[in-house]
Amino acid sequence: MPFVIPPELNPSPRLLMGPGPTMVHPRVLRAMSTPLLGYLDPEFVVIMDETQALLRHVFQTENTWTLPVSGTGMAGMESLLANLLEPGERLLVCAAGYFGSRLEEVARRHGIEVTKLEKPWGEVYAPEEVEAALRANPANPAKVVAIVHAETSTGALQPLEGLGEIAHRHGALLLVDCVTSLGGVPLRLDDWGIDAAYSGTQKCLGCPPGMAPVSVSERAREAIRARRAPPSAWYFDLAQLARYWGPERVYHHTVSCSLVYALREGLRLVAEEGLEARWARHAANAQQFCDGLAELDLAPFVPAPNRLPTLITVRVPAGLDEARVRTRLRQEYHIEIGAGLGPLKGQVWRVGLMGVSSQRENVTLLLGALREILKD
Amino acid sequence: MPFVIPPELNPSPRLLMGPGPTMVHPRVLRAMSTPLLGYLDPEFVVIMDETQALLRHVFQTENTWTLPVSGTGMAGMESLLANLLEPGERLLVCAAGYFGSRLEEVARRHGIEVTKLEKPWGEVYAPEEVEAALRANPANPAKVVAIVHAETSTGALQPLEGLGEIAHRHGALLLVDCVTSLGGVPLRLDDWGIDAAYSGTQKCLGCPPGMAPVSVSERAREAIRARRAPPSAWYFDLAQLARYWGPERVYHHTVSCSLVYALREGLRLVAEEGLEARWARHAANAQQFCDGLAELDLAPFVPAPNRLPTLITVRVPAGLDEARVRTRLRQEYHIEIGAGLGPLKGQVWRVGLMGVSSQRENVTLLLGALREILKD
Repeated sequence: MPFVIPPELNPSPRLLMGPGPTMVHPRVLRAMSTPLLGYLDPEFVVIMDETQALLRHVFQTENTWTLPVSGTGMAGMESLLANLLEPGERLLVCAAGYFGSRLEEVARRHGIEVTKLEKPWGEVYAPEEVEAALRANPANPAKVVAIVHAETSTGALQPLEGLGEIAHRHGALLLVDCVTSLGGVPLRLDDWGIDAAYSGTQKCLGCPPGMAPVSVSERAREAIRARRAPPSAWYFDLAQLARYWGPERVYHHTVSCSLVYALREGLRLVAEEGLEARWARHAANAQQFCDGLAELDLAPFVPAPNRLPTLITVRVPAGLDEARVRTRLRQEYHIEIGAGLGPLKGQVWRVGLMGVSSQRENVTLLLGALREILKD
Repeated sequence: MPFVIPPELNPSPRLLMGPGPTMVHPRVLRAMSTPLLGYLDPEFVVIMDETQALLRHVFQTENTWTLPVSGTGMAGMESLLANLLEPGERLLVCAAGYFGSRLEEVARRHGIEVTKLEKPWGEVYAPEEVEAALRANPANPAKVVAIVHAETSTGALQPLEGLGEIAHRHGALLLVDCVTSLGGVPLRLDDWGIDAAYSGTQKCLGCPPGMAPVSVSERAREAIRARRAPPSAWYFDLAQLARYWGPERVYHHTVSCSLVYALREGLRLVAEEGLEARWARHAANAQQFCDGLAELDLAPFVPAPNRLPTLITVRVPAGLDEARVRTRLRQEYHIEIGAGLGPLKGQVWRVGLMGVSSQRENVTLLLGALREILKD
């Protein structure tokens, strides 16, 4: 086969301010390029333990089963759904965006029965609405309630306090998508009674994509232990993953040493900054961005009380070619922002202010670039 | 939660000569630490296309569906099994080691009916044996025959030529585990009629773990298209993955830009060296290692004709504490080799001579270290 070898890697600079991946801290890039250890090396085992401790810190949990699944955020979603529920069991999904609907789609693949609440994109659920849905069908109760904390498709922040208590009162487990919130928005698994949560590394943790941090409460572990059969998804079998990440160290698959190095370093940066300070930084930069939008006659799609500070959806002015704006941002300023998804395609831009990307100077630059482009 | 931040990453040096991960080329580490692009950036799309072209080259195939699954080698195995077969369909597994049995275990999870041939660990199958098994039960024919090219648990190299033709004659597809062979041992998907193959990046390709290159023939694609229902494994749904890796570029999950950078660079190194030269290097270093073993009164577990050059199992002399040898290699020489798995635990060491690790000086060093340790 005649074959031309592609040239040396030489990507253009990018300021990543889309829905993810976000900018990666130089310390994380350096950690990731460290020579590897074997997956059972005594030194690597220590690094695994440290990474799990750091994950528990950022999740604000004492859960033993807190570990990164070897895949992207979607692997975390599928892993938790496939482990918490058996085929024929019922899941209540509270959806108001793309990733809420993804929960339904992935669950149905596994033969899980789904009751789906739907709201217009950008809205959030009140605790009473979740409780009413749990109360609606006592003959066929939901085993798990799933909800998205930070809906990456809409920019809405779903309040979670009280939902754990409601779920437990109705004998259900609370499963939360924290992909765009973990490390950027207040989140307290144990205090809030969250039984299972998944995230990704390429959002507010400021790492490359490739691992999906998950955490599972003792109550959820009991549900997994009580399964009649293991999940069909062998690669995502949490009981087996926990045997490798726990003291037994039973081989399951070859975890990516390099991605663990990166995650550990990203989490060290989170811990060094301090969770409260990090949440405050994300909030302040989001506020600065929204204030600047107003000066450009632009407006966020989600009203203030439920607006995410990590992913801000900006309404596209009527008649404007939004794709051209994104292209000019990329070509002339080396800035990436995201397009709208689904019903918001063409309606919004998605601006990520997550992790390393959430910096005052990035906000100033993006606002300045938008100002220049929009006045043309 | 009181919390002590773990120290800066500072792993000891390791010469990785176990079953994987292997050494990673400095160019690959550097590529991996390159700042990221978004997963739909026009420049990243070019990088994806280039990576797929490089993968087709190393697989020696023209298959359109040639792409890296976002997980480790086991994700590749599960992806192909779950896509090629529906629940209730029959798989014929030809097992003679740990990973042959893994094929059965993962397939059964997905409700696939399995006929399993078994041979003592370290042996390989003759074409007639595979054909006899396919002929044995015409009322209940196998849709897929699965076999391991390079059995990482035993060090045996399974000859593949002729098996594709046999499978096709019986209306079956040929699925091959190439985890420890791709890029280190002659392998020609198209010439050999292989319908589906999976591998890992952390073996002979000399990259970190985290991606699973797979390739699927047109015949196998037809079988996937003809499914009654999509696979339960949403994350591993090849038809959806192909829509992201193909010209449609439909979002499925956030592929790890960093791991794609690494894979592309590892594959560039493969192509620069040339496949034939690379196979010859692996063969020569394995031969040198086995010649040296004889001088130490050590012997490979697998006889020469079917001995893998990439992973050599070495018989542990009777009465020797094999774990102590591995510990001394690690502590005194910074060398990692692997222990035996399953029935070969305590019986063999597993020495990887893969990718960057397959170097004359590494062979000389390991032999010298073994000489010093064994004379104590």
